[in-house]
Amino acid sequence: MSKAKVAVLGASGAVGREMINVLVERGMRTDEIVALGGKSAGKSIDAGDNRIEIFSAEKFDFSRVKYVLGAVSAELSRKYSPKILSGGAVYIDNSSAFRLDDGVPLVVPGINDDDALLHRGIIANPNCSTIIALTALAGINRISQINEVIAVTYQAVSGAGAEGMTELRAQTEALLRGEETVCRVFPHRIAENVIPWIGSKSEGGYTDEEMKMQNEGRKIFGRDNVTFNCTCVRVPVMRSHSIALSVFCDRSLNVREVKDAVRQTKRCLLFDDIERGEYPMPMLSSGRDEVFVGRIRNTPEGRGGIALFCCGDQLRRGAATNAVDIMELVEK
Amino acid sequence: MSKAKVAVLGASGAVGREMINVLVERGMRTDEIVALGGKSAGKSIDAGDNRIEIFSAEKFDFSRVKYVLGAVSAELSRKYSPKILSGGAVYIDNSSAFRLDDGVPLVVPGINDDDALLHRGIIANPNCSTIIALTALAGINRISQINEVIAVTYQAVSGAGAEGMTELRAQTEALLRGEETVCRVFPHRIAENVIPWIGSKSEGGYTDEEMKMQNEGRKIFGRDNVTFNCTCVRVPVMRSHSIALSVFCDRSLNVREVKDAVRQTKRCLLFDDIERGEYPMPMLSSGRDEVFVGRIRNTPEGRGGIALFCCGDQLRRGAATNAVDIMELVEK
Repeated sequence: MSKAKVAVLGASGAVGREMINVLVERGMRTDEIVALGGKSAGKSIDAGDNRIEIFSAEKFDFSRVKYVLGAVSAELSRKYSPKILSGGAVYIDNSSAFRLDDGVPLVVPGINDDDALLHRGIIANPNCSTIIALTALAGINRISQINEVIAVTYQAVSGAGAEGMTELRAQTEALLRGEETVCRVFPHRIAENVIPWIGSKSEGGYTDEEMKMQNEGRKIFGRDNVTFNCTCVRVPVMRSHSIALSVFCDRSLNVREVKDAVRQTKRCLLFDDIERGEYPMPMLSSGRDEVFVGRIRNTPEGRGGIALFCCGDQLRRGAATNAVDIMELVEK
Repeated sequence: MSKAKVAVLGASGAVGREMINVLVERGMRTDEIVALGGKSAGKSIDAGDNRIEIFSAEKFDFSRVKYVLGAVSAELSRKYSPKILSGGAVYIDNSSAFRLDDGVPLVVPGINDDDALLHRGIIANPNCSTIIALTALAGINRISQINEVIAVTYQAVSGAGAEGMTELRAQTEALLRGEETVCRVFPHRIAENVIPWIGSKSEGGYTDEEMKMQNEGRKIFGRDNVTFNCTCVRVPVMRSHSIALSVFCDRSLNVREVKDAVRQTKRCLLFDDIERGEYPMPMLSSGRDEVFVGRIRNTPEGRGGIALFCCGDQLRRGAATNAVDIMELVEK
């Protein structure tokens, strides 16, 4: 990958910064990375032990790079994509702009790697909770086709970007001082609270965040007959999402084969030893690339399903690392 | 109820204090309430606008009272129950000591009121999450028998008593100061974290806390053919539990009839108006007696289930208020 030149669009955001971190950790030289921003243009940003300048995305000639990793809103992504494509770069986009478009692969490495190679210029990075849940389920889906998923999330404030993390910290300090809390990013106080509403209204009483797991999950699994019953909840945690999952497959599964399958899944860390008090927690998966998977057990009586609990860093595995993994799939 | 004399066993604990609050709010005079404690004997405690002395439980003559509300450990409950019963008082016990015993009614008022009247001296108050989930589901169960429940919890630190609340506060302060956090009550840091393990190891990879909802739920519903697939998770919230529930009944339900059923359930507050941004949150249900119920929607495609989100104050509805409601059922 050493010859690849990569631009990170939206480099000063929480996901953009993490994309640069992951690129540097994977051995890319800082002169191979171009940081692009809007208002942040002209400032500099950490890239490993160095700092690199942020250039204006508006003025950038995208034909100078081979890949663009997008960490901007869907609106900005739509704005920049024609310039990126006409410049000949492969655009790996973290926004929701193109995820469900025909001809745009939506990829979780380890599940549908081949799809990445069918791209026509754009590859979409799935929603953070989708990536984390599906990575945790990849091993199960290899041994028996998954038909039904019940997903209940504990989503970190980093899902709302750097401002979400700042808001949790500020509200926590205000609560401790007995002062009023201010809500700008979240619709209600998130400190010492949970908010069972993420995103905007979608169909049937669900939020768009909840529907993403089904819509994106079906595309990634390549099957429309998977059902996702999803409840998305924001919790006062900084940057790792947790998800309680129950899954039902073509056949009954036993715990041992599921543990083996998780153990053999590259981006998963089986962390499931009750005797030693080992189970996934966001404080453990923060800053890590693996999805921690544990609490693996059979659903009660008869239906032969599997319940588990998983945690993954929302900014890394749920966004930046998955995007870089997609880039490496294409580069190979 | 004005002639009833009530002793609160474990009056200085988080639940005991709340029992006294609820009794006073229901119009009981402070001279009708006896506060009992161990190490706290001799101290005094708030009871409405007054303060009452805590007497030694060890030395107390239980024949002096008509009811004893227990807010002590299962071990202490077993120790005191013979003295309470031989004194002739009705013992309403919040511990898990007798919940599954034959001849001991386990009661959620509004669901199995008649069971309370069959007591032989002891009536058990269910686990907090069981009370909150079943109160939220009472209306649904009236219109169609519930067969399957998937419950995923967001449990407040008050479930570990006053010490749990103190620990969350201390850890939060330490995190803000950049200092080490100390864990005495919880097995790991709970501030800015979630812990998917509450209680001790039970069968099949479940915790005893997770099995309580099934074991107690079956007894309260009076049916062994209800399945509870439960995941219990501690979150950094002070005193209200939240639970994401999916339920499947004898027949398919529609959202409107479920909302009507919740609206007609005495101890529930339907709080479900997406247009106005209304959904249950622990910050709203804290200090309240109602279980807030919202996010009511159909589970996706075909199975005809209902998904919802509910919140209830763990110390009040999940413990003290339910116990006082049981006492009032018996007193009537």
